[in-house]
Amino acid sequence: MRVRHKPWAKEKIEQYPQFVIPNPQDYKGKWTDLFGNDKPLHIEVGTGKGQFISEMARVHPDINYIGIELQQSVIVTALDKVIEADVPNVKLLHTDGADLRNFFSQGDVARVYLNFSDPWPKNRHEKRRLTHHSFLKIYEEILGDQGEIHFKTDNRGLFEYSLVSFSHYGMKLNGVWLDLHDSDYEGNIMTEYEEKFTAKGHPIYRCEVQFTDKEQKRKRLFSDVQI
Amino acid sequence: MRVRHKPWAKEKIEQYPQFVIPNPQDYKGKWTDLFGNDKPLHIEVGTGKGQFISEMARVHPDINYIGIELQQSVIVTALDKVIEADVPNVKLLHTDGADLRNFFSQGDVARVYLNFSDPWPKNRHEKRRLTHHSFLKIYEEILGDQGEIHFKTDNRGLFEYSLVSFSHYGMKLNGVWLDLHDSDYEGNIMTEYEEKFTAKGHPIYRCEVQFTDKEQKRKRLFSDVQI
Ligand SMILES: C[S@@+](CC[C@H](N)C(=O)[O-])C[C@H]1O[C@@H](n2cnc3c(N)ncnc32)[C@H](O)[C@@H]1O
Ligand SMILES: C[S@@+](CC[C@H](N)C(=O)[O-])C[C@H]1O[C@@H](n2cnc3c(N)ncnc32)[C@H](O)[C@@H]1O
Repeated sequence: MRVRHKPWAKEKIEQYPQFVIPNPQDYKGKWTDLFGNDKPLHIEVGTGKGQFISEMARVHPDINYIGIELQQSVIVTALDKVIEADVPNVKLLHTDGADLRNFFSQGDVARVYLNFSDPWPKNRHEKRRLTHHSFLKIYEEILGDQGEIHFKTDNRGLFEYSLVSFSHYGMKLNGVWLDLHDSDYEGNIMTEYEEKFTAKGHPIYRCEVQFTDKEQKRKRLFSDVQI
Repeated sequence: MRVRHKPWAKEKIEQYPQFVIPNPQDYKGKWTDLFGNDKPLHIEVGTGKGQFISEMARVHPDINYIGIELQQSVIVTALDKVIEADVPNVKLLHTDGADLRNFFSQGDVARVYLNFSDPWPKNRHEKRRLTHHSFLKIYEEILGDQGEIHFKTDNRGLFEYSLVSFSHYGMKLNGVWLDLHDSDYEGNIMTEYEEKFTAKGHPIYRCEVQFTDKEQKRKRLFSDVQI
């Protein structure tokens, strides 16, 4: 996401430590302390301007949410949405998805959302895609058993790549929608990008995938291919 | 496929035993005898009017092909295509895909093609879909190790269903195309239905999936879900 540099963003973020968690490493293995309850924790990696995560928190009070975003000048807009939502079950984390292991232990997270992740269409940038196997390994390590990834995008190439990547990692596909807005899927919450690309007439692709027997099964499945 | 009843079809088929195999049970485990060589055997289940299978045979002389079709009044048109193709590596089989185990032993077949299979959109007809797990079990039993299914269709609902069905069966997804005719896929041979639906502007979905460790792995993967 290209955005104007916002010199004041850093200061604003620091003014709201109750929303943009300043010391996430302190909660590793004990996020229940931060939220004051043991509701399941769902995170969104690459949360952008925060419409999805703050809406989800409003609609699902029984789930705790953390939106993770790399760019300061983007997360500051998400902060506005979170302030506006005014609910106790949504927080933001200003960090790189590649570093999630520093902040979450195995089982801290019950679900990972990926929405309209940057497609990185060039082969040489494959490793940056949030559905590359190196990222799947991270999600697997912070999710509980049978943890799920829910992914949506308008980008056909990224979706094709990701379905294959999930499968080669040994994940199980539980649902797929090839035109989300012309389907019987209920309860969809739109993201900013989703609104933009839907207005342009792009079909929205969505899937739900699940980790199964972890390491063991993956080794068994893929002894024959390099992943 | 709805077609006019053709009372003369039976007789015509019987006139060409070299193309529409009259005694397939005799070749179970020894299809190399029929073809006179041990090239890999690829079959298409629900071959319809035969354009795909006869073209594939022409383009790939190193593969043997058998097109399988249930309806007499349809296979008789495929017969015309096979006569016209005039190549030694394509045969037809007038039978139900549900009965393939009667004619093929484990390992006889290297690849199964499914093209524009009947979608059977109603839930209560799920078992008739050629990608239902009961059919996957049949394909698994006649395919060799790591045997593949190559599937294409314009039907979104059937494709969504099939991706999930393959995954729940423990199959590995090796490739997926969500708009085949707007992709870099090379060497596509069009089927009759494909020409029809492409002309209507439908995107064509395609995937390549593979069986892995057979029974063992499937049981391990899906002890938790009913399949
Ligand atoms: C294309 S935007 C989509 C934003 C939002 N999910 C939506 O659907 O509107 C992708 C966002 O992911 C963020 N992002 C990309 N890679 C990231 C990473 N490794 N960790 C955290 N955020 C990342 C980008 O900064 C950008 O804001
Ligand atoms: C929609 S047509 C597609 C034909 C062709 N594959 C194409 O793409 O043009 C499906 C065909 O599959 C055949 N079929 C359906 N179920 C079958 C089964 N269980 N065994 C064999 N053929 C079957 C039907 O008779 C019909 O000709």
